[in-house]
Amino acid sequence: MDEATVDKLLHEGERIDDLEVNGFRIIQNPSFFCFGMDAVLLSAFAGTKPKDRVMDLGTGTGIVPLLLLAKGKCTAADGLELQEDVVEMAGRSVLLNEVSERCRIIRGDIREIPEQFPKEGYDAVTSNPPYIAGNDGLHNDDSARNIARHEIAVTLEDVVRGAAHLLRQGGTFSMVHKPFRLPEIMELMKKYKLEPKRMQMVQPYIGKEPNMVLIEGVKGGNPFLTVLPTLVVYEEGGGYTKELLSRYGKV
Amino acid sequence: MDEATVDKLLHEGERIDDLEVNGFRIIQNPSFFCFGMDAVLLSAFAGTKPKDRVMDLGTGTGIVPLLLLAKGKCTAADGLELQEDVVEMAGRSVLLNEVSERCRIIRGDIREIPEQFPKEGYDAVTSNPPYIAGNDGLHNDDSARNIARHEIAVTLEDVVRGAAHLLRQGGTFSMVHKPFRLPEIMELMKKYKLEPKRMQMVQPYIGKEPNMVLIEGVKGGNPFLTVLPTLVVYEEGGGYTKELLSRYGKV
Repeated sequence: MDEATVDKLLHEGERIDDLEVNGFRIIQNPSFFCFGMDAVLLSAFAGTKPKDRVMDLGTGTGIVPLLLLAKGKCTAADGLELQEDVVEMAGRSVLLNEVSERCRIIRGDIREIPEQFPKEGYDAVTSNPPYIAGNDGLHNDDSARNIARHEIAVTLEDVVRGAAHLLRQGGTFSMVHKPFRLPEIMELMKKYKLEPKRMQMVQPYIGKEPNMVLIEGVKGGNPFLTVLPTLVVYEEGGGYTKELLSRYGKV
Repeated sequence: MDEATVDKLLHEGERIDDLEVNGFRIIQNPSFFCFGMDAVLLSAFAGTKPKDRVMDLGTGTGIVPLLLLAKGKCTAADGLELQEDVVEMAGRSVLLNEVSERCRIIRGDIREIPEQFPKEGYDAVTSNPPYIAGNDGLHNDDSARNIARHEIAVTLEDVVRGAAHLLRQGGTFSMVHKPFRLPEIMELMKKYKLEPKRMQMVQPYIGKEPNMVLIEGVKGGNPFLTVLPTLVVYEEGGGYTKELLSRYGKV
């Protein structure tokens, strides 16, 4: 794609970041929000297979579908997003990477998945949903940033129910979330028959409390959870650990 | 207690081990089973308070009640145990430590707690239950060792239900178990209103999968799980980590 075409895809206030995987790039607007380490760790953790069709729920910039495609971890990756301007921006990232045939950014509401999408149409579902329950103290603040972080527009149960609807039997649901909600996460995954099969805690340092949890369930799977070694992000002396860098494809 | 009295408490095949906490000792029979690191970590992890009355479910040698008393982490600690000869041996450990007024080893069946014990009579419940579901491949093997390790005589749900019956509102249930059963553990704790509030994974080494999980629920508690930093047992070069030794009171 020539520079003039790229320029046309970029709107005011936006920037293009290199994903450093097979030449993939992404459009972001720092005044909305930019993807974080959680999305990168989710795309590395997800046990999707090269032949899988994947749906990412609450896809935002489209970072997770784009990383899965960049890494060859799926054959197609769609993203569902509620906010119209965010959908539009993510759609331009799809054009930028010339993957329109394998990646659709769909405008839609996670709560309406059971009515809007056919059952069992995907092999895998991913999600980096809002972490914070409820919308206390956020009245009338429906900014993109707050919709991404707080359960204003969607609850954890909506996400899990939607994933269960979209997945075929044996398909995987991979999510990144906050450890403090793990009991509710497991209860809901069991309720919707997405048996938790693989989990990893993420700690900023050795000896510090985990601040992220990666978890994967299998639709209709048998109970047996594999807990991976806790992933430590930073070395004690500063700098990323080798394990963290490997998730960024740097080792 | 003089040596002649101690000798009378010890039966053939048994030995006395020093718990290395305030002079407490325990009688064990190596041909049955001896307590392991899991019991020590559970007694260190349990958030019991000095004024608490505690019940330990499936107490075996009585190691957990004795350690909690030795450490001053409760005012009284009872133990419930199914196997008659194990109850008798644990009872002699109580005599050996001269704590009969604060520690009763009770023969009983965890499954019958709701009928046999009054509701809400304890401030805290602990358990190091059998880890392995079902009794496949163990037909007719009801040795003490197998009853302690496999769910022959009691299931995880029996333990959680019993704990919920015994605990007052706001009381704590602390358990050590295997990480692969965590989804079921959390589902059952939620089912019986023992909200998971504190959890810690235990890894043998940095970079190795956890092989134990410590978890504590609060009866009627509000949802919010604190996940503690993963506890690593061994240094890479061998020897226990400082964190592990602190659980044995050695640092």
